[in-house]
Amino acid sequence: MKLIRFGEPGKEQTGVIINDIKYNTSAFGEDYNESFFENDGLNRLAKFVEENTGKLPIVADDVRLGAPFARPSKIVCIGLNYAKHAKETNAPIPAEPIIFFKSTTALIGPNDDVVIPKNSVKTDWEVELAFVIGKKASYVSKEEAMDYVAGYCLHNDISEREFQLERGGTWDKGKGCDTFAPIGPWLATADEIENPHNLRLWLKLNGKTLQDGNTDDFIFDIPTVVSYVSQFMTLLPGDVISTGTPHGVGLGFIPPVYLKPGDIMELGIDGLGTSRQEVKAYSGK
Amino acid sequence: MKLIRFGEPGKEQTGVIINDIKYNTSAFGEDYNESFFENDGLNRLAKFVEENTGKLPIVADDVRLGAPFARPSKIVCIGLNYAKHAKETNAPIPAEPIIFFKSTTALIGPNDDVVIPKNSVKTDWEVELAFVIGKKASYVSKEEAMDYVAGYCLHNDISEREFQLERGGTWDKGKGCDTFAPIGPWLATADEIENPHNLRLWLKLNGKTLQDGNTDDFIFDIPTVVSYVSQFMTLLPGDVISTGTPHGVGLGFIPPVYLKPGDIMELGIDGLGTSRQEVKAYSGK
Repeated sequence: MKLIRFGEPGKEQTGVIINDIKYNTSAFGEDYNESFFENDGLNRLAKFVEENTGKLPIVADDVRLGAPFARPSKIVCIGLNYAKHAKETNAPIPAEPIIFFKSTTALIGPNDDVVIPKNSVKTDWEVELAFVIGKKASYVSKEEAMDYVAGYCLHNDISEREFQLERGGTWDKGKGCDTFAPIGPWLATADEIENPHNLRLWLKLNGKTLQDGNTDDFIFDIPTVVSYVSQFMTLLPGDVISTGTPHGVGLGFIPPVYLKPGDIMELGIDGLGTSRQEVKAYSGK
Repeated sequence: MKLIRFGEPGKEQTGVIINDIKYNTSAFGEDYNESFFENDGLNRLAKFVEENTGKLPIVADDVRLGAPFARPSKIVCIGLNYAKHAKETNAPIPAEPIIFFKSTTALIGPNDDVVIPKNSVKTDWEVELAFVIGKKASYVSKEEAMDYVAGYCLHNDISEREFQLERGGTWDKGKGCDTFAPIGPWLATADEIENPHNLRLWLKLNGKTLQDGNTDDFIFDIPTVVSYVSQFMTLLPGDVISTGTPHGVGLGFIPPVYLKPGDIMELGIDGLGTSRQEVKAYSGK
């Protein structure tokens, strides 16, 4: 099953994609949130969709997509999880997973504009495989970890490198600005992705391919990540973990290349669709 | 006004404290959450309490207290914000505020047990002044920052030093374990605290005073912190910021002293009450 949310920001309705057609599932009556995932929502939704075959309203193709789930309790990210990317940022291969958080206020739809923060000069891209936790996870073993994965989605882990690396303290400062987490187009349930450890993922900037990797290059695979993170905090249903980015981010170029207004990012992962963000300057106060 | 939440974990009801007596405000019909703070809840609650003087049920003194607000979208913490504490951890005085996150699943009531995580050998205490954001804050100036503070509360920012400092990556790993954020007993609205920059705060371990500081020793004051954090992420109503801990944590002793099962922590801040946590060993799988 492929889950979507669509409509105006903050007023998204729920839907599914079947054979490339988007259907409105608002009549199901629940957002795709913590309570949905916690209470067997995926199975109940599948049953609802089956029972309503032919009756669900079609969603127009030009309707805006939101993130394919409601705001989670947390977005946990894994840093430097591809060997080549660790190298380009001049960081050693981590001995154990690096964990940081993205503020959940960063979450936007897959094709929404990415806004360069005020005073930013080093805003960068990072195509990533993200996954959603399906049930409460605490001290989960590697062996049982995949049972806790509800589904997968495409994430552009936008990062401000000066805020992240040159402003003291943790990476969190450069990861959670508004619009820094375009996610979607859809959430593919776990059964849709035969092998999450062999997915090509890529990102183009203004039509030119800059990232082109494969999740078979993970330093820490998904069971390791789920198990590891769950040793340090409880993961709730609907929580998001993003698994790191492959080689090819702006920071790694000599000299580095950062985003500027008007730039177009396009990205994709096998089985998880593509997204496209236009970069805008901050236009507020 | 002093806000409380009481009852079983996860099923807390709301209340207020007036002249040291706890009253049940469940009839107000809203939890103290993002929507409450966003929609002028504090003023509406004050009016409700005034209109119902003499009619509100009294809460028994032996009822468990929960955290005085519902789970926020985020708990942002400031590291090393007292000069003497920075020194004891062998860290330089930060040039700008250090930001890290606590997983919101760490939140517990003020007198609940603190559980030493599995595989932990360096669980430590940190008495802190925390405050709650009253309205959406993005790129707030120092001058207007205090308008965004809804109220203040007592927080024990429990920290696992090995997870925080010796496991690679950011501090987040050692800050968000379950039970690592006892908050309360109450949330004092901003008008109750004449000067948040002159509050004594202290912590006793097994009856012995180990921390005894004053918020007049902040490296970065509250307007600076609100303004600074809001440059890097949008703060939502109900979000929590914790302002750092003074000198006297376990890590600073020679040799260091860490928590063990049976230890009793008692802590307090002027005007924000006291809390008491017993330390337990992890007893799960």
